[in-house]
Amino acid sequence: MIGLSSYAGVMESPMNSAQEQQPFSPLTNSWSTQQESNENQKPTSVGGFVLVHAGAGYHSESKAKEYKHVCKRACQRAVDRLKAGALAVEAVAAALIELEDSPFTNAGMGSNLNLSGEIECDASIMDGKSLHYGAVGSISGIKNPVVVANRLLSEAQKGKLSAGRIPPCFLVGRGAHDWAVSQGIPPCPSEKMATKFSLSAYKRNKRKMELAEKIDTGHKQTKKRRQSSENVSAVLSVRTLILSGLSSDHLARANQNAAHYGCGCWAENACNMNPYSTAVSTSGCGEHLIRTMLARECSAAMQSEDAHQALLEAMQNKFISSPFLASEDRVLGGVIVLRCCRCVEAQPSQNIQGILVEFLWSHTTESMCVGYMSAQDSKAKTHISRLPPGTIPGQSLAIEGGVCRLMSVVE
Amino acid sequence: MIGLSSYAGVMESPMNSAQEQQPFSPLTNSWSTQQESNENQKPTSVGGFVLVHAGAGYHSESKAKEYKHVCKRACQRAVDRLKAGALAVEAVAAALIELEDSPFTNAGMGSNLNLSGEIECDASIMDGKSLHYGAVGSISGIKNPVVVANRLLSEAQKGKLSAGRIPPCFLVGRGAHDWAVSQGIPPCPSEKMATKFSLSAYKRNKRKMELAEKIDTGHKQTKKRRQSSENVSAVLSVRTLILSGLSSDHLARANQNAAHYGCGCWAENACNMNPYSTAVSTSGCGEHLIRTMLARECSAAMQSEDAHQALLEAMQNKFISSPFLASEDRVLGGVIVLRCCRCVEAQPSQNIQGILVEFLWSHTTESMCVGYMSAQDSKAKTHISRLPPGTIPGQSLAIEGGVCRLMSVVE
Repeated sequence: MIGLSSYAGVMESPMNSAQEQQPFSPLTNSWSTQQESNENQKPTSVGGFVLVHAGAGYHSESKAKEYKHVCKRACQRAVDRLKAGALAVEAVAAALIELEDSPFTNAGMGSNLNLSGEIECDASIMDGKSLHYGAVGSISGIKNPVVVANRLLSEAQKGKLSAGRIPPCFLVGRGAHDWAVSQGIPPCPSEKMATKFSLSAYKRNKRKMELAEKIDTGHKQTKKRRQSSENVSAVLSVRTLILSGLSSDHLARANQNAAHYGCGCWAENACNMNPYSTAVSTSGCGEHLIRTMLARECSAAMQSEDAHQALLEAMQNKFISSPFLASEDRVLGGVIVLRCCRCVEAQPSQNIQGILVEFLWSHTTESMCVGYMSAQDSKAKTHISRLPPGTIPGQSLAIEGGVCRLMSVVE
Repeated sequence: MIGLSSYAGVMESPMNSAQEQQPFSPLTNSWSTQQESNENQKPTSVGGFVLVHAGAGYHSESKAKEYKHVCKRACQRAVDRLKAGALAVEAVAAALIELEDSPFTNAGMGSNLNLSGEIECDASIMDGKSLHYGAVGSISGIKNPVVVANRLLSEAQKGKLSAGRIPPCFLVGRGAHDWAVSQGIPPCPSEKMATKFSLSAYKRNKRKMELAEKIDTGHKQTKKRRQSSENVSAVLSVRTLILSGLSSDHLARANQNAAHYGCGCWAENACNMNPYSTAVSTSGCGEHLIRTMLARECSAAMQSEDAHQALLEAMQNKFISSPFLASEDRVLGGVIVLRCCRCVEAQPSQNIQGILVEFLWSHTTESMCVGYMSAQDSKAKTHISRLPPGTIPGQSLAIEGGVCRLMSVVE
């Protein structure tokens, strides 16, 4: 149902030559030349391509190594699964479990605590081929929410329930937890999911909030804030363009940005109407992602010819300048995008098909941490993208990316 | 913030002459002539226009009177508020409270119970002018969920919270309940919200499900089912094109169709890009409404010139034949739609502006119950629309509507 075909992948972008721990230069002026630069490289192995992020927000230099490390491990997990012949959805779930299990991402283990000091998580996953979707919101006491979202997706693909009931695609709160346990997914005591870091962040933020409330009394003022959802995590895989995003928000946690349909993630395979298959995952301020339906908007935009220009315009017109956020002074979020289409081969072959994969990220937050890997790479590449110095978060954006050519073996 | 202006309304459609308890004939062939039939009627009073529904699903003949009665009361409530000078959002909330309080609608009092025998409700509200949105999902122990959604909307319009936190637009479960109580909205014991009818429906459906599960063991089969979300309720008001939809689903309750952004309701006032102001509310199978983003799709479609044709095509192409529901044999839902634009007056006046209001409903379910009223009407008109005999629910649709001209007094 889910697997499309297997791919032989080869990295074609200048990112091949970039040093892993060094930031790339923005692609604004060189995008199209990059795309054509290495057209004659030969595919060397069968596999796929994975793109992950560990949040759009703020990534301190002091923890940069850890953020990159978890992205690297997530990519490796997904590629290992792809090489073992797993379906893309399994590979994506494996990568997400790795991200959830890291204390450095605001997902699963080490998630931010809500105002009551509890951990509630979100997760969503979408299959670009069947267009099925599974999501959980505000779920507590489950170590890996993505496992529940994934189970919802796979259960929905089996068809109707007893008495003709339609299977749910979205579960929240206690109902989500109970359903997960009824499906054999083991519960996990909440206290085991908090980390030293998440507990101290909770105390620090709560104090800050109480202090701010005292100050606010009498005179209302808006303050510059460091964006909270700094380390949401997400994975995209090109194997079948399954993708998934997950997050937990800060303190006054309320919004299911990862779980909201069209907001946290989107995937649509190519069809009559759309020449490109696309997959998008978002991160940032939940309210901003929801009200702009950012994932779906970016996916739709990616049907234009120039991917880089299309994403730039979508981020500018559908996000920063969105009429839905007209009253916001700063619009905070980030996206990772994969899109692919068949490409023409120099030496056409009956059983090999070329797939051009474009991978991009863009953010209005101070930084965004990404990782990516093709199945023929020996290790993942990671990068913390930052806004250019002097620009204002929420009003400016950074956009970067690369191109990779995969060979699809037609069986 | 919310009020736009006040209107002098006059009904112009043939629905003026329709007997209230009789179904209208479909408008497929007569839509455009109706629109022009009564252009010379004079406005008689100041007010607005309200359109409500009490669900797309199945409305038995034996309870038809009750369904219509609650729609009538809801319209009357909203119009009373409009006449008293209330903002449209208050009028809409008043109508929704009336619908929630009725034991005949699957919202608030008398909502369907979930599998654990609990009542969980959803509600959402959107302001077409500010494009702000408030929603609650799976909330328990609150008599009128729409009051909570409305409070979220109005709190969000006040700007940031302490410590620069962004106010939530969507709350679920326990968090939604606790926030409501912290806002001074009184809790209501769940047992007070169940009715004799909802309890017996719960027992009947649970028995049916258990029986079906026994039968299903061994041989998987899909059965015809009576659509469950038969009496969701919603209100649209043309005063500022605030709209709202709310629902609670059946037994395996899981999906927040009313609460999901873009799925349960949508409102967008006219702007540079859009000549028409639109408001849409949906009802039906939550999963189908979510995965097609039906409310937003219908709203977008309403920017075409011919409202009736646009809605017909949207229901056909974006719902029944949606690629997102390709695996579904029956796609079950309904919409109510308001759209308006300025119209040219025969005798132009400096302080009176004509507003043309088109109101429509369409459904693929067996029936849909609607009510509508302009502020100058002495009572609301109600109607249960049914699919033509011999057609198959989920594969065919009914579409009806009318036109009304309002006079906006420019102050």
